[in-house]
Amino acid sequence: MGMGLWQTCVKLAMIWYTNRMKENKKMTVLTGDRPTGRLHLGHFVGSIENRLKLQDEADTAYYMIADVQALTDNADNPEKVRNNVIEVALDNLACGIDPTKTTMFIQSEIPEIAELTVYFLNLVTLARLKRNPTVKNEMQQKGYEEDVPAGFLCYPVSQTADILFAKANTIPVGEDQLPVIEQANEIVEKFNRFYGGEVFQKIKTIISETPRLVGLDGGAKMSKSLNNAIYLSDSSEEIERKVGLMYTDPAHIHVEDPGHVEGNVVFAYLDIFDTDKAGVAELKKQYEAGGLGDVVIKKRLIGVLEDLITPIRERREYLAKDPKKVMEILREGTERAREAAQATMQEVRSAMKINYF
Amino acid sequence: MGMGLWQTCVKLAMIWYTNRMKENKKMTVLTGDRPTGRLHLGHFVGSIENRLKLQDEADTAYYMIADVQALTDNADNPEKVRNNVIEVALDNLACGIDPTKTTMFIQSEIPEIAELTVYFLNLVTLARLKRNPTVKNEMQQKGYEEDVPAGFLCYPVSQTADILFAKANTIPVGEDQLPVIEQANEIVEKFNRFYGGEVFQKIKTIISETPRLVGLDGGAKMSKSLNNAIYLSDSSEEIERKVGLMYTDPAHIHVEDPGHVEGNVVFAYLDIFDTDKAGVAELKKQYEAGGLGDVVIKKRLIGVLEDLITPIRERREYLAKDPKKVMEILREGTERAREAAQATMQEVRSAMKINYF
Repeated sequence: MGMGLWQTCVKLAMIWYTNRMKENKKMTVLTGDRPTGRLHLGHFVGSIENRLKLQDEADTAYYMIADVQALTDNADNPEKVRNNVIEVALDNLACGIDPTKTTMFIQSEIPEIAELTVYFLNLVTLARLKRNPTVKNEMQQKGYEEDVPAGFLCYPVSQTADILFAKANTIPVGEDQLPVIEQANEIVEKFNRFYGGEVFQKIKTIISETPRLVGLDGGAKMSKSLNNAIYLSDSSEEIERKVGLMYTDPAHIHVEDPGHVEGNVVFAYLDIFDTDKAGVAELKKQYEAGGLGDVVIKKRLIGVLEDLITPIRERREYLAKDPKKVMEILREGTERAREAAQATMQEVRSAMKINYF
Repeated sequence: MGMGLWQTCVKLAMIWYTNRMKENKKMTVLTGDRPTGRLHLGHFVGSIENRLKLQDEADTAYYMIADVQALTDNADNPEKVRNNVIEVALDNLACGIDPTKTTMFIQSEIPEIAELTVYFLNLVTLARLKRNPTVKNEMQQKGYEEDVPAGFLCYPVSQTADILFAKANTIPVGEDQLPVIEQANEIVEKFNRFYGGEVFQKIKTIISETPRLVGLDGGAKMSKSLNNAIYLSDSSEEIERKVGLMYTDPAHIHVEDPGHVEGNVVFAYLDIFDTDKAGVAELKKQYEAGGLGDVVIKKRLIGVLEDLITPIRERREYLAKDPKKVMEILREGTERAREAAQATMQEVRSAMKINYF
């Protein structure tokens, strides 16, 4: 081999290596919503805000409407899932998700996810699935025990497929979802070990630092099923009514009485949504000293939430007038996601030696 | 509505109904093999003979090479599965499976099966899966317990998808596989109840009446893993050697001694494979009376098996010379199967309300 050829080889190898490194450093983010209801403020602070930031930071951003996952515990109510696909799309678009930056797609339209799910199911034992703390906890909440639908028990495997079909490597999660990603990474490790290669990378998490938003009743997290939520599509009247119902301090009967800030839902919300932190601190002092009524702090919160939700609601109403256009956005995004899925499946088939034709 | 129009309506309804009835009466059969090794005489009497009969009787016949199912307990050995795809295809073609009558296809090339599997998983509980006697039994044999791969535990669901993607309505099974079809029919029932309609029909079974073929050692069924099998591709020398090893009657030491027919593997095989029933009955009498040596009955069996296997082996060797042609047969069959799969998925998507675009 002449020196010239040798140098060319070294150069080519370096180019290959540099590209590979660049590729590995590329940030591909995937987030999603289950289409089981309109989105509320809990979703906004818990995931949408994050998603908005990430669509600018990531090299590639996917947003998935997880209808297949929604069906795992709504198999008998496909109508509900169907109807909410457009609702969650509207919520996200209204909040500022930009379909030119974020590939928005519908899970059930990517059959490659089902294929990966089936293959990944071989890489996980029943014992491991049952040990997953997230699933265990959700199963308890739903009172499932051994009567859990198999699809629900297996949803961390399906979620692994959701992430990996797109070769997403960065997933923003709440603390409670960490075990699902841990399980996904075990699947990545096992897949690469069995099918020798580097088809998939380990998944990194970005832990959402936003505190969980309590419900209007203060007792639990905001959730549709607990009927304690303020929706991103709520009218001014509904916001007013719901803030009016908010739990404050039952011992704070007269305006003159000193009130408690701790556990007071109105202050919890002001802490999160009111940008005038100094103003809120001042109010807290007054409230604790006595002489500040609930009406005043509730009015302030109503104003803050109105400022946040009104532009979202208005964009939402505007977009909702042309549902065909929204579906067209989803169709285009789904097409792009499908291309990524097909490219991944080709690699998977080759690694698993199931590329027959 | 004029009388003419009314009569037309009645006529159309009757045509529709008659077609529907015809359709329901059409017999679509699906059978398959797991590509984990060459096929042996146990497969021949247990399923191939049946399959040959059915390819003429059925309106439509599918033969599936179940590589996805083989991977549920061979996930770490894709090479083995890959290599055996062509082996089982060769075995079946050599036995007389006719690709113009039977659509031969590879499971992993039909992604719709994975999609159906994922949706069907929502219609089955973990408790129900664990209760399935067939799975329970196989799990015990493999010593799996809770460490069973999730994919293996779920294989009856995957098998339901194998059958239903093609709208197969008639499945020949061994007695031991009945619980799998029972579970499949529960899925059919639940699917039709949830997604209102008649997308799928209940599956009928044809119970194979052939006795289970014992292994050479007489102790258990013929099986590759027990190393007690005579393969459809075995050479004359191997057949001779294996029949030579066959368990007969350990008490039958001298030719003059009376021998036992019960539990004698040579007679068990002669009962199944020797068409001269009167001749076999005569031999049994002599053997029991004493004066008939093992050598004689073994020679006879060698002849009978040679007559059966030689033409199969020769056709097999001929076909094996052109593996590309075999793969082409599978490719064509897979294409046809894929068309059926896509038509079914369209109906499923419409019923499940996941037909978005």
